Amino acid sequence: MTSVAINTDVGEGFGVWGPSDEGELLDQVTAANVACGFHAGDPDILRRTCADCVARGVAIGAQVSYRDLAGFGRRFIDVPTPSLVNDLLYQLGALEVFARVAGGRIGYVKAHGALYNTAARHEGHAAAIVEAVTLYDPDLPLLCQPRTVLWERAEAAGLRPMAEAFIDRGYTDEGLLVPRSSPGALITDPAVAAERAVWMAETGTVVSVSGGVVRIAPDPGRITALCVHSDTPGAVALAAATREALTAAGIATAVPGAVS
Amino acid sequence: MTSVAINTDVGEGFGVWGPSDEGELLDQVTAANVACGFHAGDPDILRRTCADCVARGVAIGAQVSYRDLAGFGRRFIDVPTPSLVNDLLYQLGALEVFARVAGGRIGYVKAHGALYNTAARHEGHAAAIVEAVTLYDPDLPLLCQPRTVLWERAEAAGLRPMAEAFIDRGYTDEGLLVPRSSPGALITDPAVAAERAVWMAETGTVVSVSGGVVRIAPDPGRITALCVHSDTPGAVALAAATREALTAAGIATAVPGAVS
Amino acid sequence: MTSVAINTDVGEGFGVWGPSDEGELLDQVTAANVACGFHAGDPDILRRTCADCVARGVAIGAQVSYRDLAGFGRRFIDVPTPSLVNDLLYQLGALEVFARVAGGRIGYVKAHGALYNTAARHEGHAAAIVEAVTLYDPDLPLLCQPRTVLWERAEAAGLRPMAEAFIDRGYTDEGLLVPRSSPGALITDPAVAAERAVWMAETGTVVSVSGGVVRIAPDPGRITALCVHSDTPGAVALAAATREALTAAGIATAVPGAVS
Amino acid sequence: MTSVAINTDVGEGFGVWGPSDEGELLDQVTAANVACGFHAGDPDILRRTCADCVARGVAIGAQVSYRDLAGFGRRFIDVPTPSLVNDLLYQLGALEVFARVAGGRIGYVKAHGALYNTAARHEGHAAAIVEAVTLYDPDLPLLCQPRTVLWERAEAAGLRPMAEAFIDRGYTDEGLLVPRSSPGALITDPAVAAERAVWMAETGTVVSVSGGVVRIAPDPGRITALCVHSDTPGAVALAAATREALTAAGIATAVPGAVS
Repeated sequence: MTSVAINTDVGEGFGVWGPSDEGELLDQVTAANVACGFHAGDPDILRRTCADCVARGVAIGAQVSYRDLAGFGRRFIDVPTPSLVNDLLYQLGALEVFARVAGGRIGYVKAHGALYNTAARHEGHAAAIVEAVTLYDPDLPLLCQPRTVLWERAEAAGLRPMAEAFIDRGYTDEGLLVPRSSPGALITDPAVAAERAVWMAETGTVVSVSGGVVRIAPDPGRITALCVHSDTPGAVALAAATREALTAAGIATAVPGAVS
Repeated sequence: MTSVAINTDVGEGFGVWGPSDEGELLDQVTAANVACGFHAGDPDILRRTCADCVARGVAIGAQVSYRDLAGFGRRFIDVPTPSLVNDLLYQLGALEVFARVAGGRIGYVKAHGALYNTAARHEGHAAAIVEAVTLYDPDLPLLCQPRTVLWERAEAAGLRPMAEAFIDRGYTDEGLLVPRSSPGALITDPAVAAERAVWMAETGTVVSVSGGVVRIAPDPGRITALCVHSDTPGAVALAAATREALTAAGIATAVPGAVS
Repeated sequence: MTSVAINTDVGEGFGVWGPSDEGELLDQVTAANVACGFHAGDPDILRRTCADCVARGVAIGAQVSYRDLAGFGRRFIDVPTPSLVNDLLYQLGALEVFARVAGGRIGYVKAHGALYNTAARHEGHAAAIVEAVTLYDPDLPLLCQPRTVLWERAEAAGLRPMAEAFIDRGYTDEGLLVPRSSPGALITDPAVAAERAVWMAETGTVVSVSGGVVRIAPDPGRITALCVHSDTPGAVALAAATREALTAAGIATAVPGAVS
Repeated sequence: MTSVAINTDVGEGFGVWGPSDEGELLDQVTAANVACGFHAGDPDILRRTCADCVARGVAIGAQVSYRDLAGFGRRFIDVPTPSLVNDLLYQLGALEVFARVAGGRIGYVKAHGALYNTAARHEGHAAAIVEAVTLYDPDLPLLCQPRTVLWERAEAAGLRPMAEAFIDRGYTDEGLLVPRSSPGALITDPAVAAERAVWMAETGTVVSVSGGVVRIAPDPGRITALCVHSDTPGAVALAAATREALTAAGIATAVPGAVS
C-alpha cells in the first residue's frame, strides 16, 4: 500500500515565548520537524517536544537552521560551507540526546526557513546539508523539494531524499511556492487542502495559481511527504482533513522512515 | 599499577576568538575538557578540538556550563534545576556528535567555572548534574572535587565520580582553592607543581598555604584526576613535568575511563 | 493635587515572538516599562513600542535587566558590579535612541525581574543600578520598592527613587510580594485591585494576606507609582478600574517625572 | 591645509576574549571604529574603549554591523531593510552612552565587515545605513568607499559621506580590494603603505595589482579617510609611517568631523 508522511513544524518557541499547545496538531501528523535551538527551541522545549512525539509515535525530525534566533532562521546567512556543516551537526547532536532521553531517535532531517529555500538553489549550502547528513547518518531520510539542487546533490551522494509538497500553499507555474505576500499563497480551506494533498500524492503534480498542471514530484518518483505549516490558520483541521482524505483514497500515512 | 588522569580545558574560543594552539598541551594530558558552546566553543572549534583529541588518544570530556557566553560561564546563574538538566543534556548531545564524527566518544563529564564551584555546595545544581549524567550515560566518569555536595550526590546516585585535584593552585586549610586574588593562589614552577602532583596522588592530601596537611581525597579513596588550567602561565611545562614525575614515582597516566 | 504614575511592562517579545497588542493597556497607564533587549525586546519592537508610547503621551521607562534572553531576566546572575553598570548603560543607550526617534525621551528607569528583586537586598547590584542612573542622568526617576537596599542607596546618592506598589499582587506581613506559587499571590478582580490601589496611594499601607496592615511606603513618604503586570489576566480591566477609582478619590495619574 | 583622517578598528573582543592592547595603535590614528556589540564589543569593552579614545582625542566612530557574533559580522545576512535600520540605531544608541560617559560623543559612522561590503552594491542595505544615519544625526560623517551604491545614496540624501581608502590592501583594476586569499592582497611594508597613502591622498588614485592607475576618489572629490586594519601585521608601524609621511607631504591628520 502506498504511503506518505505528513509533517509539521513544532517546538518553535524560546524561553518564555513557548510554542502554543501542539498536542492536537501532533495527533494528526506522522512527522514533527523539531526546532533544534538555532532559530527556535530551547533545551526545555526540546525535551518536552521529543517526549510529546514519542508518546504519539510521531517521528522526530531535526529541523536544522541557520544560527539566527533574532530572525527565526528566515534570513539567508552567507555561512561558509564547512562552518554550516558544523552548525548542522551541532543541532543534530543536541536534538539527538533529547530524542534518546524520550525513548526515541531522530527519524529524519529537514532544513528550516531560509536554509530550506536557499539549499534548493545554492550549491554550497546544499552541499553542507548533504555532508552533515552523510557524516551524521546517511540512512536518515532528508525531506526536501524535488527538482532542486539539494535534491540532486542528496541523490548523487546516495542519501535518501524524500519528495515534499505543501498542502497549504499555492504553487507557481515553475513549481515554486507563491510568495506569502501574493494572492493564492495560502490555502486554508480543509476540503481544498485535502483534495490537493490526495492529488499531489497520486499524480505528483499540482494545479498552479494560473491553472496549469505542474509536476512537482521527481522524475521518476512521487510525492512522499506532505507538509502543513503549523502557523497556517486552522492547521489542525487541514491536517485532519488531509489524513482522512488520504485514507479514503487508499493512501496510508506513515513516519518518514517507513514510507513505501 | 596505580594511575591518574591529567586533564585540562580546551576549545575555549568562539568565532574569530579562536583558542590558541593547544597541540602541545594536548600532547601532555590524557583528558581534555572540551567547551560545548554555552560558555565557549562554537561548532567549528568543537569539530577541530575533537579531532585533535582523537588523534592523540586523549579522552574527550564534556565541559558543561551555564549558558553564559558573555561571562564565560564564570558567573553563577540561578537556573531552575529542571532547566539546568536540559541545558546540560543539550551540550552533551552537541559535543557527542563531534566526538563521533572524529571517531571517538565522550569519555567523561566535568562542570565548568561557576557551575563547578556552585555544584560543590548547591543541592539543586549538584542534582542537575547528577540527573543529566544519569540520563545521558551513568557509566561516564564525572570529574569533581571530593568532599562536596556534588561528590556525595554523584556517589549516592551510583555514578562514577572521579576525585580531582589541581596541581597549579594553592589550597586553604579547608581544602578549598585559594582565591585567585590572594597570595599563594597560583603555582607556576613546574618542579613544585610536579612534586605536589605526586604527593597528592600518593597521599590524598595537600600542603595548604598555611603549611597544614589537608585531606582532599575522598575517605576512603584517592585522587584520580589531576587538573592543570590551560591558562596558567607555562601550562605545557607544568603538565610535562607532572607527567614525568608521576611516571618516575610509578604512577601511570591514563584516560579517565581507564584509571585504576 | 496628589498624583501617582501607573506603570506596566511592554515590548516583551523577541523576533517572531512578538508582544501581543499592547495598545489597550497603554491607553490606561501613564508609564511603560520598555524591555531594552537584554531579557526581551529586539530593535524592531523597541522602535514600535516607543512610537506607541509617544503617541499616547505615556512615559517611556527603561526596564533594564540582566543579560538573559533564555531566562527572560528572571534568574539571578552573579555579574560583577562594574560589568553590571555597563550592561545597564548599554541598555539605556539603546532605548534612548528609539525614544528620540519617536520624538520622546527616556522618562524613568526600572529594573526588571530578577534584577528588581535582587537589588532590593544585594548591595553590589543595588550599587550598580545607582551608578548607572547617576552616570546616565541622575534626574531620572528610579522606580523601586521602598524600604529596600536599592531605595536607600538611591536616596543616599541623591537620585529620585519613586515608591512603587503592586496593585495585582498580595503582600506578606513583611511587605514583600507573596510568591506566585502561594495562595493570595494574584489579584485579578478589577474592583478589588482598584480599591487596594486607592488605599495604598492614600495610606502608604497594604492589607497583607494575613489581614495585617503593613506599611509599604517610605517613612516619611508615600506611594507614587502603581504597577500592574501586563501578564496578569485582565490587566487592561485592572488598570482601567484603578485609574477610575483614583480619579474618583481625587488622585490624579501622571507620568513619573510629573508626579507630585 | 589639506587633511585626512586615519582610522582603524578597535574594541573587537567579547567577554574573556578581550581585544589586545590597543593603546599604541590609538596613538597613531585620529579615528577609532568602535565595535558596538553586534559583531564584537561587550559593554565593558565599549566603556573602556571610549575612555581610551577620549583620552587621546581620537574620534569615536560607530562601527555598526549585522547581528552576528558567531561570524564576527563577516557574513552577509539578508535582513529586511526596516529591521536593519533598527539594528543600526540600536548599536548607535548603545555606543553613544559610553561615548558620553567618557566625556565624548560619536564622531562618525562606518559599517563593519560584510555590511560594509554589501552596502557598496546592495540598494536595500545601503538605504538602511542612510536612513539610520539620517534618523540618528545627519550631520555625522559616514565613512565609505566612493563610487559605490552607499556613497551615492548617502550623497543624494544630503549626508556627509567621507571617501575612504585602505593603505594596507591591494586594489584591482576595478578599484575593489584584492580578496585576502589572492596575491597582493596585503601590504605590510610600512614604507610602501606610507607612500601609497600619500599618493592616494594627493591623487585620488591607486596603482592596482596589475600596475594600472585607478581612480578611487569620488569625481569630483578626494580621499579624506585612510584605513589601516588593526589586524594587519605591523599595523602600528604602518599607521605611524603613514602619519609621518603625510605630515612630510603637507597633509595634516584630523578627526573625521574636522577634515577639510
